[in-house]
Amino acid sequence: MSVLSHNSYGKSRVRLTKVTRREERHELMEITVDIELEGDFEASYTEGDNRRIVATDTMKNTVYALARSHSLEHLEGFGLHLAAHFADGYPQLRSATIRLAQQPWERIAVGGAPHPTAFVGGGSEQRVCTVVRSGGRSHVEAGLEGLLVLKTTDSSFTGFERDALTTLPDTDDRILATSVTARWSYAPGAVDWNRCHAAARVAMLEVFATHHSLAVQQTLHVMGEAALAACPQITEITLQLPNRHRLLVNLQPFRLDNPNVIFVPTDEPYGMISGTLRRE
Amino acid sequence: MSVLSHNSYGKSRVRLTKVTRREERHELMEITVDIELEGDFEASYTEGDNRRIVATDTMKNTVYALARSHSLEHLEGFGLHLAAHFADGYPQLRSATIRLAQQPWERIAVGGAPHPTAFVGGGSEQRVCTVVRSGGRSHVEAGLEGLLVLKTTDSSFTGFERDALTTLPDTDDRILATSVTARWSYAPGAVDWNRCHAAARVAMLEVFATHHSLAVQQTLHVMGEAALAACPQITEITLQLPNRHRLLVNLQPFRLDNPNVIFVPTDEPYGMISGTLRRE
Amino acid sequence: MSVLSHNSYGKSRVRLTKVTRREERHELMEITVDIELEGDFEASYTEGDNRRIVATDTMKNTVYALARSHSLEHLEGFGLHLAAHFADGYPQLRSATIRLAQQPWERIAVGGAPHPTAFVGGGSEQRVCTVVRSGGRSHVEAGLEGLLVLKTTDSSFTGFERDALTTLPDTDDRILATSVTARWSYAPGAVDWNRCHAAARVAMLEVFATHHSLAVQQTLHVMGEAALAACPQITEITLQLPNRHRLLVNLQPFRLDNPNVIFVPTDEPYGMISGTLRRE
Amino acid sequence: MSVLSHNSYGKSRVRLTKVTRREERHELMEITVDIELEGDFEASYTEGDNRRIVATDTMKNTVYALARSHSLEHLEGFGLHLAAHFADGYPQLRSATIRLAQQPWERIAVGGAPHPTAFVGGGSEQRVCTVVRSGGRSHVEAGLEGLLVLKTTDSSFTGFERDALTTLPDTDDRILATSVTARWSYAPGAVDWNRCHAAARVAMLEVFATHHSLAVQQTLHVMGEAALAACPQITEITLQLPNRHRLLVNLQPFRLDNPNVIFVPTDEPYGMISGTLRRE
Repeated sequence: MSVLSHNSYGKSRVRLTKVTRREERHELMEITVDIELEGDFEASYTEGDNRRIVATDTMKNTVYALARSHSLEHLEGFGLHLAAHFADGYPQLRSATIRLAQQPWERIAVGGAPHPTAFVGGGSEQRVCTVVRSGGRSHVEAGLEGLLVLKTTDSSFTGFERDALTTLPDTDDRILATSVTARWSYAPGAVDWNRCHAAARVAMLEVFATHHSLAVQQTLHVMGEAALAACPQITEITLQLPNRHRLLVNLQPFRLDNPNVIFVPTDEPYGMISGTLRRE
Repeated sequence: MSVLSHNSYGKSRVRLTKVTRREERHELMEITVDIELEGDFEASYTEGDNRRIVATDTMKNTVYALARSHSLEHLEGFGLHLAAHFADGYPQLRSATIRLAQQPWERIAVGGAPHPTAFVGGGSEQRVCTVVRSGGRSHVEAGLEGLLVLKTTDSSFTGFERDALTTLPDTDDRILATSVTARWSYAPGAVDWNRCHAAARVAMLEVFATHHSLAVQQTLHVMGEAALAACPQITEITLQLPNRHRLLVNLQPFRLDNPNVIFVPTDEPYGMISGTLRRE
Repeated sequence: MSVLSHNSYGKSRVRLTKVTRREERHELMEITVDIELEGDFEASYTEGDNRRIVATDTMKNTVYALARSHSLEHLEGFGLHLAAHFADGYPQLRSATIRLAQQPWERIAVGGAPHPTAFVGGGSEQRVCTVVRSGGRSHVEAGLEGLLVLKTTDSSFTGFERDALTTLPDTDDRILATSVTARWSYAPGAVDWNRCHAAARVAMLEVFATHHSLAVQQTLHVMGEAALAACPQITEITLQLPNRHRLLVNLQPFRLDNPNVIFVPTDEPYGMISGTLRRE
Repeated sequence: MSVLSHNSYGKSRVRLTKVTRREERHELMEITVDIELEGDFEASYTEGDNRRIVATDTMKNTVYALARSHSLEHLEGFGLHLAAHFADGYPQLRSATIRLAQQPWERIAVGGAPHPTAFVGGGSEQRVCTVVRSGGRSHVEAGLEGLLVLKTTDSSFTGFERDALTTLPDTDDRILATSVTARWSYAPGAVDWNRCHAAARVAMLEVFATHHSLAVQQTLHVMGEAALAACPQITEITLQLPNRHRLLVNLQPFRLDNPNVIFVPTDEPYGMISGTLRRE
């Protein structure tokens, strides 16, 4: 009567702290790993025959065991290592998808100098990476999430369609705030993952700061172009920019003017602007 | 140098309460709506030319204005109404996607009888619906999220693959707990949305309770089959079952046995089992 | 130069699932326990001398070990048991505070009958309890959190103070919605904890539904009185009622009326109304 | 039968963005304000007589109106201003409590220089402040929340009490991670709020990094002492340090050693260590 047309399974939120103890200082890497496998698992679904099932508990063990000897200098390298372990090691697999996110930690400054073994963290921004391995080839997607940015000026929104349900006035000076989600793909071949990630990130931040925004859509486009220009190995980038509205407060009932000074930040509803730019 | 290969935008988390004031009792409907449009919007991205842009603020207004006269008896009907308003009303659109979620409210029992105007809420389960309209046709996907269920017995997991990284023992009696996410598609034509949703939900709950689970994968399969059997208009169902592990606590250091009595519930890491069943 | 004027420490979010396997059905209890101790611990703070420190890991072990043999029929009994274990067992303690919260689970209905071993959960409401033991005496406070309730009518708010910063109009018919937090104390002596909790809860729900609210403050007062009346052993009750505003949407720009039909639910800002009623 | 022994009410989560537009650059201040009033409000609770009630909506308006002309250079000054407005302006008040939290924003670096009108945010750390005004006097408490810190070494925990329920081994080298919550009181009189806050924060960070921890309790003590030493106007400081455990992973089943290299970060359960230091 029914057919199992798709299936996959895995382990999510495997959290890992690795401390690399060098002579002069410690390196700290904290990541969260999600693993998802596709393959010949139908018998488990339809009959409860688990012989081809790699237990999700085993996947968790694998993350810790492989992290012991891997350098973990970047998400991309560890993601490729994990993807190959699963996709090349278990014949019943068609593909392995590894999703990684890195928690931000910086060294505490003591007397102006970065401390070798103490860290301060807590930002909302995460560096992320997805590796998909299938048919002997791996695809790497890198990116970031939760990068909050805000411009107090140089943002307008005018000339949009007006109909019977439109009440928003044109504005030539508003606050623009967003939480950037970006994912980009790399061309096959050697990439300096850390340098390229940093370059794309800085390029997006700088153009966000310096351009005059005509719409969140247009801001998305210039940020995407900046990332493509910053790192030649990026072939394609997708951005999602929620419009974290700051609404001008009406102070007229209190006989006060409000020349773009007092706003109320709101979480919902919010505009959500998406777009993908591909290098030609 | 680059081409905008994809774009879409919309308004997310438009929240709405509608009170329908009947003679003998009030009906309460609380929903959250997300709207996403695709179409001829490239000029806004590439040049900041917003002439074809429907402001996301206008989308928000539309939800409230259309809800005024619509019956809102179910998410599906209101979703179809909104999708048609956008997709059929703006020539620059290629598609409109409406995602809706309903907050659960039940009448307060007073002296054993449901009260006509007072409600108690707060469950984590949400009824959801997605309507996509494109090319003059609408596709309806219904479902639910956040339905927590737990079996204290009749769940085993044995015979899975064992290798050098496997430490999980076989178990023939464990707690099985999950938070069900289900999405199903309906065949074109008339559907009693409320009756069909309730039938699929009850069928999944009952089979979860009564079957002996050989794996979360197999539980997913029997739940999908039960939903397909409960409502003939369902053509396909996708389930996601995170394994909300309850781990047996080792009480031997305290000279106590633990015959499946004391467990620690954990949030992470968790197994995540997915599958799609299609009616043949 | 400084004195340690106060200190305490403990273990938070110890999560526990207990399954009591009776012949005909299983009982399921899922709770979260926080333990906080005060006592003669200064040497650990000032000198790192930990000889009087009960490790928080030991507190966690204690919860699991004591739960093995305890009936866990209610939070209050297990809280008293834990408090006595710590306060009476370690001479360096001045007081032990045990906070407990119970996750809501109900039996899945199968063919109309409650299933003996399968449960459905997920509500936001939690039953809570705090036991403080000090000087050989225990004080029990019980309550609930996260009980969402909403009235679509029978709520007004008029006649409040008006000044130069007041813009809110009087209203004689609004939606009243809140998430009830209630904590009450019991007189020393025997209490049927489960019956009394249920009676107080039902009494608050029923009066919320049936009274005409003149202010959230007044609703709080009638709910507190109802709880005191429902259970003679309650000596005092504190309620916190956040005003989960549903704001009437202005549909006039769209030439539509809105006779209390369409509202927007908001999370922030919110009014917060608190009060304590003591039995005389 | 009952007496209203305590009452208070107010408005919570009033969010505000203020942009101060200077010639050469913009200042950005984003805060969340909670207001709580105590006073002669019993008639509203007991009879629904609202004549002495300041609507919470009016409190919200007040925050925006007063922020228009106030410099908002620090939370403390604005909190004092709001507290005086309420406590001195409404004769029915006995006290006004203002709680404020500041969202962290830094200028985007463009070509190495801070941009005048663009900001990056998103850290979990918030600067906070509570002002209580009563009887014509104001008390100011400042602090911070959500400051995540981690030491990869120089942390031990040994010599604690061992009993039948203790399984934790002594350790002389562990990861110590916590999310600092600190609240301190100022002596009456002039304080440079921004300088003092920064000095206390830096002092706590530096001593966290450089001291050898013998227990979280002892770390709390040295951090409190450092804050008291950094700012003479601080009279008392309370710290709360949750122990965000990083647990050593057992890699022996995979024939791997783990010399403090691979850890699993956990959210629950967690130790919670509290203490108050008063200047003598």
